[in-house]
Amino acid sequence: MNVTLLSVGDELLVGQVVNTNAAWLGDYLAGLGMIPTRTVVVGDSVDRMTDELKAAFTSSDVVIVTGGLGPTHDDVTRDAVAGFFGVELQLQERWFQLIARRFERRGMSVPERNRIQAMIPQGMEVLPNADGTAPGFWKSWETATGPKALAVLPGVPEEMKIMMREQVAPRLAPLSKKPVHQITIRTTGIGESHLQELLEPVLGRLPDAVSVAYLPSPFGVRLRITERALEGETGQLAERLAAEITRLASVYVYGRGDDTLEKVVGDLLKARGETVAVAESCTGGAVGSLLTDVPGASAYVLGGVIAYCNSVKEDLLSVDEEVLLRQGAVSESVAVRMAEHVRDRTGASYGLSTTGILGPTGGTREKPVGTIWIACAGGGETVTMRLRLGKERLKNKQRVVAATLDLLRRRLVEGSVGDG
Amino acid sequence: MNVTLLSVGDELLVGQVVNTNAAWLGDYLAGLGMIPTRTVVVGDSVDRMTDELKAAFTSSDVVIVTGGLGPTHDDVTRDAVAGFFGVELQLQERWFQLIARRFERRGMSVPERNRIQAMIPQGMEVLPNADGTAPGFWKSWETATGPKALAVLPGVPEEMKIMMREQVAPRLAPLSKKPVHQITIRTTGIGESHLQELLEPVLGRLPDAVSVAYLPSPFGVRLRITERALEGETGQLAERLAAEITRLASVYVYGRGDDTLEKVVGDLLKARGETVAVAESCTGGAVGSLLTDVPGASAYVLGGVIAYCNSVKEDLLSVDEEVLLRQGAVSESVAVRMAEHVRDRTGASYGLSTTGILGPTGGTREKPVGTIWIACAGGGETVTMRLRLGKERLKNKQRVVAATLDLLRRRLVEGSVGDG
Repeated sequence: MNVTLLSVGDELLVGQVVNTNAAWLGDYLAGLGMIPTRTVVVGDSVDRMTDELKAAFTSSDVVIVTGGLGPTHDDVTRDAVAGFFGVELQLQERWFQLIARRFERRGMSVPERNRIQAMIPQGMEVLPNADGTAPGFWKSWETATGPKALAVLPGVPEEMKIMMREQVAPRLAPLSKKPVHQITIRTTGIGESHLQELLEPVLGRLPDAVSVAYLPSPFGVRLRITERALEGETGQLAERLAAEITRLASVYVYGRGDDTLEKVVGDLLKARGETVAVAESCTGGAVGSLLTDVPGASAYVLGGVIAYCNSVKEDLLSVDEEVLLRQGAVSESVAVRMAEHVRDRTGASYGLSTTGILGPTGGTREKPVGTIWIACAGGGETVTMRLRLGKERLKNKQRVVAATLDLLRRRLVEGSVGDG
Repeated sequence: MNVTLLSVGDELLVGQVVNTNAAWLGDYLAGLGMIPTRTVVVGDSVDRMTDELKAAFTSSDVVIVTGGLGPTHDDVTRDAVAGFFGVELQLQERWFQLIARRFERRGMSVPERNRIQAMIPQGMEVLPNADGTAPGFWKSWETATGPKALAVLPGVPEEMKIMMREQVAPRLAPLSKKPVHQITIRTTGIGESHLQELLEPVLGRLPDAVSVAYLPSPFGVRLRITERALEGETGQLAERLAAEITRLASVYVYGRGDDTLEKVVGDLLKARGETVAVAESCTGGAVGSLLTDVPGASAYVLGGVIAYCNSVKEDLLSVDEEVLLRQGAVSESVAVRMAEHVRDRTGASYGLSTTGILGPTGGTREKPVGTIWIACAGGGETVTMRLRLGKERLKNKQRVVAATLDLLRRRLVEGSVGDG
């Protein structure tokens, strides 16, 4: 089963937008056992897109198109696909009503150009888009050499992903025959090289059917185990390997699959009926923001204080002016005080704090850029950690946020072991 | 002059690595007036690569290949290119000596596999690689339809970029004749369709040499103007169009090029010697986090309060319990109180606040999911805005953050008009 991914948009060709859609789709399809054989980016031109559709269906059985479904002149995917199949565009009255209602709810009338978004090539099946105005569409058919299929999805990543998972994947599944079992193990707080050393005993002697990939990010390293099982097998090798890796990497492992650190921490808090508050200096609110990305976070996130400047640390978190002067804002004492005070002030079970120099400038000889203190107060003690990071501001910020959430996660996991 | 970018590597197809090389090359080539017409990713297979080279030279004059020049079995670019031109690989003795010396300096002998890296297809010109063991290669030739060229570069981004700049660009320059001028205008607070209606008077009658693309995101719509100028022209059409668009879209335009909303707001505050504090409910710290993404933000961001639950709104922001009960946390009064209190409490020039229901659940009949109130206190008054958004939590959050920063930006811009 050969698959071509076809991404549409001038913004991709000139590098204004990086093609993360193709990366996500490649990863997702690999999980379904359908590794793409090629991915192509083409600009907003009907002629060029038609050429690429021809080439794609010459070499591939399945073509997945993303992008070019917006309401403007330069959105040509609908026209190109209709032209390729020699059919007309047809208004989907039901979908147009949905678009109109969406605008009405916001007190607006539907702009004439959005009408085009309710039109799809004749003979195609509408793929509803719950989050946007552009529906996708799908067509599959039989040929002498086997089944062929075309899926067309919007380029907005969130919309594309949901539609791929919920609507395209179930339609593709019957076309594929080679199951692949994948397990992703999520770690944080350990670098790629050290993780590799730690796992050498098991990864040094892998069976042929199994491979392991390291996927690093500022939030931690994910390990993806892939087992290309023969027909009828059920991925037991991958499962056994995942169990061994989890045992060896122990405390660094926080989850599997789509688990996020913020969701794992939230679930632990919810299960214990506990709450958290934050006192953030260098992260400027990013810890609170990430914690509350999880739906239902109000069950365990109370809030907190963004203490970016020293006067806020003094006024809202009662950090002593003297301590700030003597030890500096980036110090263990200040981190401890911030975490304990925000916990006491809000009545939360746990207080988390961050203070540091994210860079790219602002360091001193004693406290170079990348010097960070974080603290977690609660459960009868306050634990702290010092991080020594690089000079890249935004990457540093993500690493501080991850380390701070992980400090709480470990506290909760150890706590629950102690309680049990 | 049509250009195809051909990126080689299984890791790109399965999304293990995002194709940032193609994005960088697209941007770089656009600057040289050679926007790529297509970019293709292909796996580590001689046959598939040969097919793509054939297709590339059918539709394009210039093909730039990256990747597949490493020392291992799965690095097939050399073989595929040699096969495509029907020539043999030839050892470049001088380059091999360079590789050998590089290993010797580290006290190692050169591994046999690295010998292959000094071999390039016959008749090609070596492109030296100052930072790695794989040289690139280049070939240009005349055809009945004009000049053709092939550049092959390593996939390591740092090596590829230097070689592109220093060796490929000077060789490409004589082949191109059409400079391209690009201007990006950044807007927020207006949707793609309404923006198009607003700009219809000027975009409805564009000269042939100019095109405009809409690039939407939850943070706003960017407009990219591209002028394919004739020889000797200097992009005046694009500049004139940019001025007209900026006049028509007026208050929705916050910047150009790489400007970000947080940077624009920061620069305005800094220029006026003013400061800002935040009181965030539904955004959980995301406004503060984005403001402090900018290096040097400590000059104008004081901090603030994350008031996710009502008790924090009462305790740290003095919101009346009665108001919370009577009007609910998601109300104009509460937004006003939060913004004014955080400003007064921290001594900032401006206070920003957010309160709302981001979803996906938690709405009521009167206040459905997506109901948001934001406020900006300062400069002698408190302005508020009600947003009606969709049901997607994270997209809603980004839109609230953008709208909140924009509320302050407009206040600052109007203020400076009034002051002047």
